[in-house]
Amino acid sequence: MDPRLHFLTLATRDLDAARRFYRDGLGWQPLIDVPDEILFFQVGPGLLLGLFEADKFAADNGGALPAGIGGTVLSHNVPTADAVQTTVDALVAAGGELVKPVADSAFGGVRHGMVRDPNGVVWEIGFNPFWSIADDGTVALSAPE
Amino acid sequence: MDPRLHFLTLATRDLDAARRFYRDGLGWQPLIDVPDEILFFQVGPGLLLGLFEADKFAADNGGALPAGIGGTVLSHNVPTADAVQTTVDALVAAGGELVKPVADSAFGGVRHGMVRDPNGVVWEIGFNPFWSIADDGTVALSAPE
Repeated sequence: MDPRLHFLTLATRDLDAARRFYRDGLGWQPLIDVPDEILFFQVGPGLLLGLFEADKFAADNGGALPAGIGGTVLSHNVPTADAVQTTVDALVAAGGELVKPVADSAFGGVRHGMVRDPNGVVWEIGFNPFWSIADDGTVALSAPE
Repeated sequence: MDPRLHFLTLATRDLDAARRFYRDGLGWQPLIDVPDEILFFQVGPGLLLGLFEADKFAADNGGALPAGIGGTVLSHNVPTADAVQTTVDALVAAGGELVKPVADSAFGGVRHGMVRDPNGVVWEIGFNPFWSIADDGTVALSAPE
């Protein structure tokens, strides 16, 4: 098995709230939107985020997994330290709940903040000058030149 | 905020078990391995998976998030229906726990199975002929030609 994530699927109690937040609030265009079932967004090259109605999520794994989202943070990096605050503000304006106000950070970049979406999905917004993506998609975490 | 996931970070109670599973068992090469803190793997173009020691994970978000992983499935697609079983077998051989035996499926591809890693991270292995990635990274979910 090569190290490759193709889908990230999250149990979602309120798909309508998710649609309002991501589509209407943030302006993301769903790849597929099946009401009462699943919302797919492309969130990277070759990568889909699936917001999967919680009961169907549970049925699909035979009830083996807790449906409440826990232990999981999704991170989005922005190009400047100032953009951390404006992006966090945009998420809150779209209906997100501030979990961690923007501050200098030990992890997740030199400055970051966190916002919870209406279904408990936590997004970290970070500025990290030590992080880069090469043209071929290779990620580096190292001191800037 | 554009629809882009840069890091997926999961609370990890036993980093040594994670290292044995992903590095020693599956042969994945960590981008960074900081004992007792975090393991990073690149799992797609521009995408890192961070397995973050659970207490530091909690400290980083101020204890606002449950540390037990829930409501989250990571999916990896394989090119043939037969490869679903061999990949699930490889994950189990590496120390994973079978959550859902390989079977035809309503979601997640026409055939899939699920395995839980030593820290509760659930991987779905699927074969899905309706899913494809174009050269530019664009994902399609549609009937095959």
